[in-house]
Amino acid sequence: MPTTSMGSGDQMLNEERILLAYGSGGKMSHQLTQQLFLPCFDNAFLRSLDDAAIMEVPAGRLALTTDSFVVKPLFFPGGDIGKLAVCGTVNDLAMKGAKPLYLTASFIIEEGLRLAELRWVVESMARMAKEVGVQIVAGDTKVVEKGQADSLYINTAGVGFVPPGLDLSGANPRPGDVVILSGAIGDHGIAVLSQREGLGFETSIASDCAPLHGLVEAILSVSREVRALRDPTRGGLATTLNEFALQAGVAIRVEEEAIPVHEGVRAACEMLGYDPLYIANEGKLVAIVPAETAEEILARLRAERCGEEAAIIGTVLPGPAGRVTMRTRIGGTRIVDMLTGEMLPRIC
Amino acid sequence: MPTTSMGSGDQMLNEERILLAYGSGGKMSHQLTQQLFLPCFDNAFLRSLDDAAIMEVPAGRLALTTDSFVVKPLFFPGGDIGKLAVCGTVNDLAMKGAKPLYLTASFIIEEGLRLAELRWVVESMARMAKEVGVQIVAGDTKVVEKGQADSLYINTAGVGFVPPGLDLSGANPRPGDVVILSGAIGDHGIAVLSQREGLGFETSIASDCAPLHGLVEAILSVSREVRALRDPTRGGLATTLNEFALQAGVAIRVEEEAIPVHEGVRAACEMLGYDPLYIANEGKLVAIVPAETAEEILARLRAERCGEEAAIIGTVLPGPAGRVTMRTRIGGTRIVDMLTGEMLPRIC
Repeated sequence: MPTTSMGSGDQMLNEERILLAYGSGGKMSHQLTQQLFLPCFDNAFLRSLDDAAIMEVPAGRLALTTDSFVVKPLFFPGGDIGKLAVCGTVNDLAMKGAKPLYLTASFIIEEGLRLAELRWVVESMARMAKEVGVQIVAGDTKVVEKGQADSLYINTAGVGFVPPGLDLSGANPRPGDVVILSGAIGDHGIAVLSQREGLGFETSIASDCAPLHGLVEAILSVSREVRALRDPTRGGLATTLNEFALQAGVAIRVEEEAIPVHEGVRAACEMLGYDPLYIANEGKLVAIVPAETAEEILARLRAERCGEEAAIIGTVLPGPAGRVTMRTRIGGTRIVDMLTGEMLPRIC
Repeated sequence: MPTTSMGSGDQMLNEERILLAYGSGGKMSHQLTQQLFLPCFDNAFLRSLDDAAIMEVPAGRLALTTDSFVVKPLFFPGGDIGKLAVCGTVNDLAMKGAKPLYLTASFIIEEGLRLAELRWVVESMARMAKEVGVQIVAGDTKVVEKGQADSLYINTAGVGFVPPGLDLSGANPRPGDVVILSGAIGDHGIAVLSQREGLGFETSIASDCAPLHGLVEAILSVSREVRALRDPTRGGLATTLNEFALQAGVAIRVEEEAIPVHEGVRAACEMLGYDPLYIANEGKLVAIVPAETAEEILARLRAERCGEEAAIIGTVLPGPAGRVTMRTRIGGTRIVDMLTGEMLPRIC
C-alpha cells in the first residue's frame, strides 16, 4: 500500500496490533491516518487533513443519517463490519430516495486489535464505497483499553440529496396500497448468528448485506408516487411493518405464503425457535406502493440484482390503526407485533 | 418529562438500567426514542421517525465532520460526555468557519448503564445544542453486553455551511503570520484525569469544554483573511502547532512565557510529570492570522466569554518546514515535537 509522504507519517505502521497510542491524536494517530485511512479512502476532502471536509453542494433537500455498528463477529459469511457500515448508512439514505454522496467514518478500537483485521475492514469499506459511488470524507479514531470494547465498533454518518418532488415517508401509506418485499428474509441474522455460535449451517447461509440504492432507482424509474421504503434491519420485517402501520395510522395485512424465506433460514429458525419475521436483514427493502403501480414495480425489481426474489406480500387496510396481521399458510390470521425484548443482540 | 403518544411508545420506560432490548430495534428501542430522545432533542426532523432526516439547504459549501467520544469518567468538573459530544463536533465545524446547523447522535451503551445517567447525558446534549443553535436531527442506539463497552460511547457527526469567500485551512499559514491562542491550556485533560484517578485537585480545575463558534465569529468579524483555526484537543497545543507546520510547510516559533497556563494545571503537571503543551483542551482555539490583523483580533477575543485570556504566543517562520520551536522562560530554544505515544487515554 502506498504511503503519502508527510512528516510524522513517514515512520511505517509496523506494530502487529493496535496500541492505545494510535488514538492519541499524536504521531501514531497520524501514522494510522497517513498509511491506512488516506490511501484506502483516497479523496481530496480527506487529504485536506483539516477538522471538517468541505464540499460544494447545490440547493435542495439534504438527507442526513447515522448508524453505529457493533456486529459480532467482525467477519461473517457474505460480509464484514466494514461492508455493513457503508451499506447500512447508504441504505438509510436510499430509503428516503436520496442519492448517497458523502460518508463519515469513526472507529472505536479495542487496544490489541490486529492491524491486519483493521486493514481488512477499512479496505472492505473502501471497496463498497467505490461500488456505491460515495466518498468517505471525514473520520475519527479512538482506541480504548483492552476489555473496554469488543474488537471494533464503527459509526458512519451519511449525506445525500433527495431529488425534487419526491416524498417517501413511513407516514404516507394509504388503504389500498400494496406491500412489496425485495427478497427473502432472515439471511443476515442467521448468517451472523451461525458464524458467532459455530452452529454449522454457515456454509449454506450468507448475509444479504448489500447496498440498495440501485433497487430504489429501479423502483423510482417506474413511478415516483411510491409511498414509503424501509430496509427491515434490526427487528426484522415484522417491526418495519409495524412502524409503517403506526406512522401512517393504517393496518397492514400480509400473506405468510407470499413472504420468501430461504430453506436454510427456515430450518435454522425452526431449530432455534426463532421467527424469520423478526430476523435482521441488511440487503432487503419493503416498498409500499399504489396498487396500480405494483405489478410493474415488481417486474422491474425482479430484473435487478438482489431483487430476483421480490414479491407482493400484502396490502394496506384502513384500520385498526397500527395493526399488522398475517394470513397464515393454514388459513388462520394472527397479529404480528413489533419485536418485544431482544432476540439476537450484536447483529449489526 | 412529556411522552409523545404513539403506539409502542406508550409503555413507560420503567427499568432502572439499560437492557440489551433497548438496542433491539423493537418495542423497547421505540420506547427509548419516544420517551427520552424525542422529548429532549425535540424537532420536526427527528419526529418524522424515518431512516434519514431531510432538510432544505441553500447552494453553498457544506462542511461535514465526525467524532466519537469515549471519555472516562462520563461526568467531570466542567462537563460530561454529552456536552463534549456536542461541543467537539460543533468546534470542528467552527474551525473551518462553518456555521454549525445539524448534528447526528449515535449511542453505544453498555448493558446495565443507569437510565438516569443516560438521561442526564442526553439532557446535557440537548441543552448544549440549544445554546449553540444546532438541531440533533438523526440518531441511533446500540446496546452491547456488560463488559463490551465502558458505560457509554457517543458519536456525533455535524453539518454546517461555510460563508462564501472564506478559506480556513491548516495549509494556509505563511511566514510572518502570528499565532494566537484563545486562553489557558491543559484544563480539560487535567480535570478529567483528576476526576478519574481521584487525585484531589478536582476542586480547583474544571474542564474548559465549550462551544467555540462564538469566538470564531468574533475573529472573522475583524478579518476574513484569517489563515487557519484549530482547537488543540487530543495531542494538545504542541500537536496542533506541528500539524500546521507540516500542512503549510513552514516553521512555527512560540514563546513559553506567552502561553497561558493556570496555576493548578501547572502544579498538577509538575507533580505528574506532564507537559501542558501536550494536554487536551476542549474549549480553546489556535488562530494563525496575518500580522497586521493580530492585535485587533486579540482585543476582540479578549472581549468575548472564553477568550479573556487570549494571547499572541508566536510567529510563523519560513522554515525548516514542519519544525516547531519554543523559546523557553530561561532564554533557550527547544524543539516541540508532536505527541509521541499516549499520555492520557480516554480524555475525549
